[in-house]
Amino acid sequence: MSIVLSRDSPQRVMENTVTNAEKYFGQFCSTLAAYTRKTARLRDKADQLVKELADFANTEHPEMRATVRDFAEDLAKVQDYRQAQVERLETKVISPLKLYGAHIKQTRAEIKKFKRVQKNEIKQLEKLEKLRQKSPSDRQMISQAETSVQRASADASRTTLQLEEVMDTFQQQKLKDLQRIFSDFVTIEMVFHAKAVEVYSSAFQTLESYDLETDLEDFRAKMHGVYGHHDARPLRDTVSSPALPWSFPGQGVQSTPRGQTEEEGSADESAEEDAVEDLRAQRQARHQ
Amino acid sequence: MSIVLSRDSPQRVMENTVTNAEKYFGQFCSTLAAYTRKTARLRDKADQLVKELADFANTEHPEMRATVRDFAEDLAKVQDYRQAQVERLETKVISPLKLYGAHIKQTRAEIKKFKRVQKNEIKQLEKLEKLRQKSPSDRQMISQAETSVQRASADASRTTLQLEEVMDTFQQQKLKDLQRIFSDFVTIEMVFHAKAVEVYSSAFQTLESYDLETDLEDFRAKMHGVYGHHDARPLRDTVSSPALPWSFPGQGVQSTPRGQTEEEGSADESAEEDAVEDLRAQRQARHQ
Repeated sequence: MSIVLSRDSPQRVMENTVTNAEKYFGQFCSTLAAYTRKTARLRDKADQLVKELADFANTEHPEMRATVRDFAEDLAKVQDYRQAQVERLETKVISPLKLYGAHIKQTRAEIKKFKRVQKNEIKQLEKLEKLRQKSPSDRQMISQAETSVQRASADASRTTLQLEEVMDTFQQQKLKDLQRIFSDFVTIEMVFHAKAVEVYSSAFQTLESYDLETDLEDFRAKMHGVYGHHDARPLRDTVSSPALPWSFPGQGVQSTPRGQTEEEGSADESAEEDAVEDLRAQRQARHQ
Repeated sequence: MSIVLSRDSPQRVMENTVTNAEKYFGQFCSTLAAYTRKTARLRDKADQLVKELADFANTEHPEMRATVRDFAEDLAKVQDYRQAQVERLETKVISPLKLYGAHIKQTRAEIKKFKRVQKNEIKQLEKLEKLRQKSPSDRQMISQAETSVQRASADASRTTLQLEEVMDTFQQQKLKDLQRIFSDFVTIEMVFHAKAVEVYSSAFQTLESYDLETDLEDFRAKMHGVYGHHDARPLRDTVSSPALPWSFPGQGVQSTPRGQTEEEGSADESAEEDAVEDLRAQRQARHQ
């Protein structure tokens, strides 16, 4: 049985459809899962910056303190949206891609069944051919073999129709799902980026309206105290240089814990705001 | 010399200003560098998805092929903007923060000098006091000690004025730089997110206009060939299940190579587009 299938034979079309779906949906799934994990890492780093900014704000003069706090607040808001992005990617992109594993397995089983039935048809045909050459006069045997061939052919036809239906549904579903999954990916990203633009625009305003002079006067007033009542007290050696992270440490592997995924079906604007508020509460609880 | 400084003494104000700047600028620098690295990882993962999409497109029917190619193209465009974001963060946020290490060291040296001179003034005062108690009649010694005190006082006054000037400049520069660096951070992020919204909007249109029916007819025509000339050829066992990445592998640590940073000073719209085009060409050359 050394029959070579042509590149574009119908069987090949079916086989390749399943094989490519398995290969590429698998790749998309693991790459998008990694993409989502990296997004979670980015969120963690920004959360860390938020914390550092809040600490720093406490050491600053009133205007800078207020400005840095507002900026940290905005940065935290972006991370809340990023968290929502991560959870949506998991629910609407990664989960459906994961499910494809089982779906493809089932379709592959159908193809196997078809091949088995097809092989049987060929076997019966070969058997009949042999009989006709070896014992052309054995009418009874030949008649029996002919019946077997007919039965096998009917089997093959039925299975072929079944497979045709399965493959049609598979392909239709696959193309629809691809369109939907990528559209969902794009929508999730788009919503996040749009929210980020909105929040950062407000952060920009905050930073632009920072009043340097008030802080500088505050600082000068405190510093000039030294020369006002020149008391010549020695400075204690508290200005020791601590071990500081000026050099960049190797990238620590960080866990990317994720909140419980509560995905609302259709996200209208206000429901979304609510969801983000919820996430925020959860995340803040986690950070404390 | 067990003089305790009050929490808000002017010296403390100066010391804390420098110590906090060192601590927090160091933190901001390393956290923002990590944030930038994570952004580069995200870019790498998305680049990988672009490559997989392009490979997949080649296995698909004409409409899906065109749609997936357009989508991959848009996704690649977002990564080009992300690359620009990474390079700008390095140039306009991380580099200036890094430079603060040296700046702070210098200011710390000024404070040390001030403390030395101040200590000397106290030492001379104490010496004079002792002389007055021990040998109140030794006019010559006392006169000498008085001269020393005067000299040390003049020294301290001069150094105090110098330090005052240094600290004033330092604080002014620090507040200005903070405002500028965070504003630059926000601007860089804002530009990236705005571009992403723009590109993803176009990607969404592409995906929405995908024509499923044409592809499905194409697929059916190829598949129905089987039953048109029902040749009962066996399917070869090429549909073997390859080792596939359905399970998620541990997150491989990836290098984040960065192109040469060519940062244009003021980025007007078209210059920016050009810059992104350049980056893209560089990155594509790297990927090939």
